[in-house]
Amino acid sequence: MELPARFGIAQLEEAFGSGQVSPVEVVRHTLHRIGKLDPALNSYLSVTADRALEQARHAESEIRAGRIIGPLHGVPYAAKDLLDTKGIRTTVGSRILADNVPADDAAIVEKLSAAGAILLGKTGLHEWAYGITSSNPHFGPVRNPWNTERIPGGSSGGSAAALAAGLCSFSLGSDTGGSIRIPAALCGIAGLKPTFGRVSRRGAFPLGHTLDTLGPFGMTVQDTALAYQAIAGRDGADPTTVDKPVELPRFDAEPRLEGVVIGVPRASYYERLDPAVDSAVQSALRVLTGLGAQLHEVATPDIDLANSLHRLILLAEATSVHHHRLQERREDFGDDVRALLDQGRLVSASDYLNAQRQRRCFCREFARTLDKVDALVMPAVPIPTARIGELEVEVNGRLENVRLATTRNIRALNLTGLPVLSVPCGFHSDGLPIGVQLVGAAFDERRVLEIGHAYETATEWHRRIPPIAQPPVPSDTAPSAP
Amino acid sequence: MELPARFGIAQLEEAFGSGQVSPVEVVRHTLHRIGKLDPALNSYLSVTADRALEQARHAESEIRAGRIIGPLHGVPYAAKDLLDTKGIRTTVGSRILADNVPADDAAIVEKLSAAGAILLGKTGLHEWAYGITSSNPHFGPVRNPWNTERIPGGSSGGSAAALAAGLCSFSLGSDTGGSIRIPAALCGIAGLKPTFGRVSRRGAFPLGHTLDTLGPFGMTVQDTALAYQAIAGRDGADPTTVDKPVELPRFDAEPRLEGVVIGVPRASYYERLDPAVDSAVQSALRVLTGLGAQLHEVATPDIDLANSLHRLILLAEATSVHHHRLQERREDFGDDVRALLDQGRLVSASDYLNAQRQRRCFCREFARTLDKVDALVMPAVPIPTARIGELEVEVNGRLENVRLATTRNIRALNLTGLPVLSVPCGFHSDGLPIGVQLVGAAFDERRVLEIGHAYETATEWHRRIPPIAQPPVPSDTAPSAP
Repeated sequence: MELPARFGIAQLEEAFGSGQVSPVEVVRHTLHRIGKLDPALNSYLSVTADRALEQARHAESEIRAGRIIGPLHGVPYAAKDLLDTKGIRTTVGSRILADNVPADDAAIVEKLSAAGAILLGKTGLHEWAYGITSSNPHFGPVRNPWNTERIPGGSSGGSAAALAAGLCSFSLGSDTGGSIRIPAALCGIAGLKPTFGRVSRRGAFPLGHTLDTLGPFGMTVQDTALAYQAIAGRDGADPTTVDKPVELPRFDAEPRLEGVVIGVPRASYYERLDPAVDSAVQSALRVLTGLGAQLHEVATPDIDLANSLHRLILLAEATSVHHHRLQERREDFGDDVRALLDQGRLVSASDYLNAQRQRRCFCREFARTLDKVDALVMPAVPIPTARIGELEVEVNGRLENVRLATTRNIRALNLTGLPVLSVPCGFHSDGLPIGVQLVGAAFDERRVLEIGHAYETATEWHRRIPPIAQPPVPSDTAPSAP
Repeated sequence: MELPARFGIAQLEEAFGSGQVSPVEVVRHTLHRIGKLDPALNSYLSVTADRALEQARHAESEIRAGRIIGPLHGVPYAAKDLLDTKGIRTTVGSRILADNVPADDAAIVEKLSAAGAILLGKTGLHEWAYGITSSNPHFGPVRNPWNTERIPGGSSGGSAAALAAGLCSFSLGSDTGGSIRIPAALCGIAGLKPTFGRVSRRGAFPLGHTLDTLGPFGMTVQDTALAYQAIAGRDGADPTTVDKPVELPRFDAEPRLEGVVIGVPRASYYERLDPAVDSAVQSALRVLTGLGAQLHEVATPDIDLANSLHRLILLAEATSVHHHRLQERREDFGDDVRALLDQGRLVSASDYLNAQRQRRCFCREFARTLDKVDALVMPAVPIPTARIGELEVEVNGRLENVRLATTRNIRALNLTGLPVLSVPCGFHSDGLPIGVQLVGAAFDERRVLEIGHAYETATEWHRRIPPIAQPPVPSDTAPSAP
């Protein structure tokens, strides 16, 4: 079989099942691609080639013997480098942990091992998954595969860039203020922030402990769902996880959305949009209508207040994580993160607690919006994709702060804990992807995945491959390790 | 029937059932006692005489008709004046709320109404249930019925003093750092701090929202259990409550404790005790052994660190509650509370969050102590009862700060959320009562109530009545309202 540029989970499941291709071939091919393409992207901080090949050989013999664990068996993935991996360096993007080798796997990594997935390596991220700029001061910037001068979005940029470029078949990120959805949108792939409490965070380095949510990236919504199902579920070691059944989405070949009501929060989330984003999201709404969905305009609570609450809560929580480290290793923090942590020291406990109180009001109000609809739809990143290092971009002739504008439609959703799926919905004229978000009710990931899948089936955006990732590299010429 | 000085729930249940006495007689009698005795105690801030009599008449006709709701039907009680009562002034001990009349009952008050209990009035407390000294700057000090020059303990002092003096048949308090257990100990009655999450706090004015727990005072452990059962249970409107079955304790007439293992944390909780307290608690241990219990010495985590964590968490949480009020009505706060709230403003969010993290470690360690035993036993208040206004007392020839020493064995238990019962276990030479605490595993109130009841059955301490409450006042001479 001539191997394509990228292969997702569902494709591999089929190819493995029919014997067209083997896990070893796929891992070799992907490692070769990493060796060839990643120098331009810097998406991996560590590649675990030998270990991955060994696991691939094991998976191969199991699959050949008919002992297939499930859809992730033999499938190579990449994990954001804040997830503990036993015996494999886990830096959290910091110089301080440059030589940190955890003694145990994170819960989410354990679950994927049990599902037979193969870890290819650890992906680049913002320093401590925090920071204002896209450039990691210790490990350099991750680059967007659609244009290596542009940011891939953060903080899970490495995981998204690697997947978009076909340097893995799915990947893992974390989302505290958009860190899954932003890179998914900017790299043209799907990304799911599951409901807070759905995925164990044991062994994941914290940023904001009432906001952090781990989740998957997939080349398609179906892939995203398959990875999500493998990592979801209660973990006794993480008391924030809950014991709710993980309902499997139904993915029809020709899905329709008759009877589905989709809320459109125009007043808050459709403001100050770049024209290309506006047009792409309007088209997406028409596609949804064409599939039979009903659109209802809905009002949501004040997004600006919510964004302020998110900022204050995150400032305080991140500073509490790094409090002692900041005192002892001040010079080992990058300027951006140090400045944010210093700001966080000024947040009083009283302000923090009152922000959490206001957050509860916001959440109650926001959740009510979802009483009347099945999901909300809104643009993910409302502005063009910035150049690496650029702090401001022009939107409708007006300069916008990249970080504030990028997260404007996104970060407040972390206050709610609700599940949010980002899917590609178009492209800017400069060839950079655009994403649209679907927000579901708590623990109703199934619904947003089904709607996302229906949308995707009716469109072609998710099939586009970044130029850097083409053409495919024949696997028979691939060396065993990069 | 000639009415006794005090009557508890179990006594009334029997007397009502047999028709020996009626709710109207009891309420009249108790209102008369309030009129006569409370000027010396100041335990009530408001007495709801007319309403109580009306409810008593209703209860009387229901009971006469054989429609008895349960053991609290027709039983008069008093509620700490931070519990919302519909149409009845609720001051929280503050000048700012001197005219505050809630539109709804607190959940706990609703539950007691449904159980047929009759509210007699609202009891005095520290300003905002906070403050260092025992004296409320707006409503004056509540006085201890055993000696009106002494403090009754706080902040639920009014509820404890009223019950000890027979000015109600049970009462309600709240415990954030000992506010049920301290007044129970100092007033010679039983008091239960249920497990955090067991009793709804809807409509209760907050002090420290991760610490506040509502609970009952009773003249006996059995009474305390009856009141507890009526108020326990999940409430959808208070998300901190949990849905765990409320197991009813088994109260044998001649209870034994064979097979019961009681932990004695000597290293932390038996330090720097006043000799009378030491001797009373040692006797209590002998009584428990005599009943068949086994005593095991156990180690608990560092109590001094835990007390510091409690102080920091409470400073921050209380300040967050009063943040805006303190800015707008600064002059309407008493000096003590204002000083504490100003201190609380200096707590950073980062320190608060890290204290909460350390708290979780303390809780885990503390909970492990209970893996091997059924309950822990330790002195409640380790020092003699202070005079009103006194800031230091001499203990073993050494001056101790009243507030710190009073709460030393008590406040850290609020960090754990575990259920704690305080029962009388002796008297100081000056006639003031001494209390002993029983700590149970989470949601195992049943166990501490059973052990407390067994202990009580073997002793006479709970039968003693403060001199001020004797002799009984004949009810037929009582006016209908004080």
